[in-house]
Amino acid sequence: MNPIFEHRSIRSFLQKPIPESVLHRIIEGASRASNTGNMQLYSIIITKDKQRKTELCARGHFNQKMVEEAPVILTFCADLHRFSYWCSLRNAEPGYDNFSSFYTATIDAIIAAQNACIVAESEGLGICYLGTTNYCTDAIIDILKLPKLVFPVTTVVMGYPAETPEITDRLPLRAISHKETYQDFSEKEILDVYSEKETSELYKQFVKENNVHNLAEVFTKKRYTTAANKSISKSLLKTMQSQNFMNND
Amino acid sequence: MNPIFEHRSIRSFLQKPIPESVLHRIIEGASRASNTGNMQLYSIIITKDKQRKTELCARGHFNQKMVEEAPVILTFCADLHRFSYWCSLRNAEPGYDNFSSFYTATIDAIIAAQNACIVAESEGLGICYLGTTNYCTDAIIDILKLPKLVFPVTTVVMGYPAETPEITDRLPLRAISHKETYQDFSEKEILDVYSEKETSELYKQFVKENNVHNLAEVFTKKRYTTAANKSISKSLLKTMQSQNFMNND
Repeated sequence: MNPIFEHRSIRSFLQKPIPESVLHRIIEGASRASNTGNMQLYSIIITKDKQRKTELCARGHFNQKMVEEAPVILTFCADLHRFSYWCSLRNAEPGYDNFSSFYTATIDAIIAAQNACIVAESEGLGICYLGTTNYCTDAIIDILKLPKLVFPVTTVVMGYPAETPEITDRLPLRAISHKETYQDFSEKEILDVYSEKETSELYKQFVKENNVHNLAEVFTKKRYTTAANKSISKSLLKTMQSQNFMNND
Repeated sequence: MNPIFEHRSIRSFLQKPIPESVLHRIIEGASRASNTGNMQLYSIIITKDKQRKTELCARGHFNQKMVEEAPVILTFCADLHRFSYWCSLRNAEPGYDNFSSFYTATIDAIIAAQNACIVAESEGLGICYLGTTNYCTDAIIDILKLPKLVFPVTTVVMGYPAETPEITDRLPLRAISHKETYQDFSEKEILDVYSEKETSELYKQFVKENNVHNLAEVFTKKRYTTAANKSISKSLLKTMQSQNFMNND
């Protein structure tokens, strides 16, 4: 069975370590990923130490308990430092302190991350991506001692699952795929592709718990507000600058 | 066999179409990907039309022949348009026209893309990511008629392989993975992790063909120059602005 079709995020883990051989295979799977010019512009920080997990949990990931509980935390970083350092040692002037290099390396890091996740799932592990990585880049850089030209892009917690949640709903494929060109939606079509979500008991409960009028407001008023998005945007751009990725002129 | 460990990029394809059922499974695999808040902030444009492939090839991908030759081109886009449109129709004010939303959606799009690639490879297809997507975002937006708040992040060509290249080299795992915190390299360590590349016949040939002093210069002087990176940085940021993704204040 292809683990892709069985994927659910796992947020609760058994207190059972991941064998070194399995972790090795996960990192090896990551390293096989497609990447730009075979430069492999990413690095993976493997955190197992209890105290460091507690610190990552508190300062880097809004106290999400799974960060302390999971036996292994992988932080996938865009890394132009290693490559630039090598270039310098060979008297080749590196020009990778800019947005394009950052963006390219981010893409490399994510492809590698997804490979790691699929290998982990093939090995019977559960995984969860942490979107909180984007909110606390400065703290994560500090905790993991990331040098300039290294930037935390995403974090994955992994371990043996202590839960088996249902597979979550997805939009119908016609909502996310377009033939030949982007086929913009009519009002009717948009409401149609979101109707299954809007009428599900699970999401009706969300609306009730959040005390808002409808499902869209759960996102706009509670989970991903304009103010938070603007604030995170500024913080991301600032950290990109302080990590030396914005010398574009 | 897990296709992750057998991956090689395929750049030459048989003139044999991909069955609809296989393409359906590939898009379904993409849709199962982890994503932020289950918003699925991406869209996939499926190009099969000969004339449109020719146009994408010429204006979007520096005339790389595989774009015309492959039966299917998938362009993975960060898409805040669909979600924002739905919010608006529900009188929920969307605040997703900023860098943080763009960045989050980019990550979603890439995880989905890698799922699609792995499903495709499981089905016997070959794939290649096109980094050129970043260089010609304006042209791709024009050809694929992408509305504001939609941005092409990466492109994958796919089809039945007409070649079986060797698996390409990778850096040793100690170069890309770090225990607990980033363990910065000494000069000796950096040269050591790049030594296999620098001494391989394949890369020696690259150095000779490019008429440069060493492998690092192939990258800094020929393939990914400072001037090109700065120019692409500015063009990416400009297109992000014109697609309405930079309202951060």
